[in-house]
Amino acid sequence: MRSLLTRQSVRATSRFYVLRRPRESFTAQCSLITSVTLEKASPVPRSLETKMPSLDGFLQRVRECNTGLEELPTLTPFLVDGKEVGKLKPRFVEQVRRFPEVFVIEGEPGPSGRVTLAADLDTCEKRSAKVAEVLQVLRSEGFITGWRDELYPVVASFAESPLLLVERAAATHLGIKAYGVHVNGFVRDPAGSGGLKLWVARRSLTKPNWPGKLDHIVAGGQPHGLSCRENVLKECAEEAGIPASLAATARPVGAVSYLTIAANGYKPDVLFCYDLELPPDFVPTPQDGEVSEFSLKPVEEVAEIVANTTEFKTNCCLVIVDFLIRHGYLSPEQRGYLQLVAALRSGDCS
Amino acid sequence: MRSLLTRQSVRATSRFYVLRRPRESFTAQCSLITSVTLEKASPVPRSLETKMPSLDGFLQRVRECNTGLEELPTLTPFLVDGKEVGKLKPRFVEQVRRFPEVFVIEGEPGPSGRVTLAADLDTCEKRSAKVAEVLQVLRSEGFITGWRDELYPVVASFAESPLLLVERAAATHLGIKAYGVHVNGFVRDPAGSGGLKLWVARRSLTKPNWPGKLDHIVAGGQPHGLSCRENVLKECAEEAGIPASLAATARPVGAVSYLTIAANGYKPDVLFCYDLELPPDFVPTPQDGEVSEFSLKPVEEVAEIVANTTEFKTNCCLVIVDFLIRHGYLSPEQRGYLQLVAALRSGDCS
Repeated sequence: MRSLLTRQSVRATSRFYVLRRPRESFTAQCSLITSVTLEKASPVPRSLETKMPSLDGFLQRVRECNTGLEELPTLTPFLVDGKEVGKLKPRFVEQVRRFPEVFVIEGEPGPSGRVTLAADLDTCEKRSAKVAEVLQVLRSEGFITGWRDELYPVVASFAESPLLLVERAAATHLGIKAYGVHVNGFVRDPAGSGGLKLWVARRSLTKPNWPGKLDHIVAGGQPHGLSCRENVLKECAEEAGIPASLAATARPVGAVSYLTIAANGYKPDVLFCYDLELPPDFVPTPQDGEVSEFSLKPVEEVAEIVANTTEFKTNCCLVIVDFLIRHGYLSPEQRGYLQLVAALRSGDCS
Repeated sequence: MRSLLTRQSVRATSRFYVLRRPRESFTAQCSLITSVTLEKASPVPRSLETKMPSLDGFLQRVRECNTGLEELPTLTPFLVDGKEVGKLKPRFVEQVRRFPEVFVIEGEPGPSGRVTLAADLDTCEKRSAKVAEVLQVLRSEGFITGWRDELYPVVASFAESPLLLVERAAATHLGIKAYGVHVNGFVRDPAGSGGLKLWVARRSLTKPNWPGKLDHIVAGGQPHGLSCRENVLKECAEEAGIPASLAATARPVGAVSYLTIAANGYKPDVLFCYDLELPPDFVPTPQDGEVSEFSLKPVEEVAEIVANTTEFKTNCCLVIVDFLIRHGYLSPEQRGYLQLVAALRSGDCS
């Protein structure tokens, strides 16, 4: 609104007049300014506070992202170049034990033991090549499924250069930290109420993981060789037909983390969160068959789906709750607020 | 801009035309929409990314909020009604030992021992009254300074009802969790570049704590008997002359936490963060002598002050870094991003 004022001569309505008015009447002016601010900056959304005196529903979703930890004492640390980069389930330790020229098992399986790589594998290239051979065998034997032909970096923490690269489908078996980008695609209510709507995707029923579940407009794993920003542009184009010029306005707004011990292994994941404001009449279009449909829902409706159902792919719930917190939809007046803020980073956020 | 469109008849420039255009030419439209979006939603601020390939400066500020932890093994837990609510330094254990009808010391001072309250103090009222008598004696003896006549609730976690109330000046001596509200008062660049400016306060040189340091436009401890929202309204009026109608648009956006062992005791603090968008020509005015001056600075300038100096009151740095992260000023492309996101909640955030 104000930016328009500076660019074109809109006739001075009382609403604009105050913005130019001299400051002799401070309080009178503030009350007027406020009416402007309420339109521009939009009122604080309070409906969720009324509907949800407690945030237990959201806390339950967070718990569902952090499960199976009772198995922790059965896992064997996976070390590369002296750094712990993952953990293996007993089943997988026995599988890699068959390839002593690549995987070396020291001590007994479990927290006291360790899985490492053969000493002669002293570069990222050598390690990646030999480990890939092993993973291909396990794939051919049907032990590793859902092969993606996508390489994930193996690192102790995000900024470090990879110690080796492994096929994405093996990430959980090796228990390495996996990173992803999740984009909140939102629209400001054109009526100026300040209300927001979120674009929600319905995952295709043919997807191997989470078929038919609700998802973000755009989300994807963070592969080797792309920056997070480049990955956001790529996924925006591939998953929703969002042109680069628009996708480039996505803002990094933080990260959430969780830790799950799933059937196939240890999953310490970190999701980089992005906010992407979309024009009211932009409509995302499924591009790669991974999404069956997109729908635009008021944020309050999305919040109730997250709090009261398991319709969303589990890890999306963390990113949506983070969105609700950052945009003022939740408040310290709601029971569990601080626990929820803290729980969004339950995993190793590094 | 869009909200205006819906309200008044602005002549249709090409910039607005696209918003009404039928959707037959998808890509062409997107590129046009983007130009609108870039103005409305504003481009992602990237200057800090160029200037700061590493976030070490911010990480150093966070470390300065979490100091003295090597003393942890010397502190004695303080339990009320069976719940640990604080920790005492050896010096303060010896002080309260003089009042056995109120404070009971079990075992040796240190982590294995404990300080509790006399069993007959079985209500919040009784505990508060008797503890207050002890604190008044310690005040008269000059052991407790900076008396505020402000009661803090003693709780194991925020949502619980207080086990007792204590004078604010004694909070650190007893090592109880203290809560506060910090308001980021920001202004959107009227030129529509999407750039933001932050109102920064300079603390009066006469303040007992942090005299002359930079501070938020509004920040305050969370006393007993006020909700965080009520406290924000109160502090906005008292500290900066922000009228309630404007202060009411402040949005809760999360919380940060830290843990310091200071000279006078254990400080596990939690700060509730608020964003308050202010009209470009609103000028805060010092009300209570606690602020010597307010100045409006580009967010990038504030960020550089935080990263490169100790000009700001230490705990404000956490809230400002949280603001930078939520508004897209920092990015995963900068070294230390995830560590910084995680470090903002180094204390017990409950």
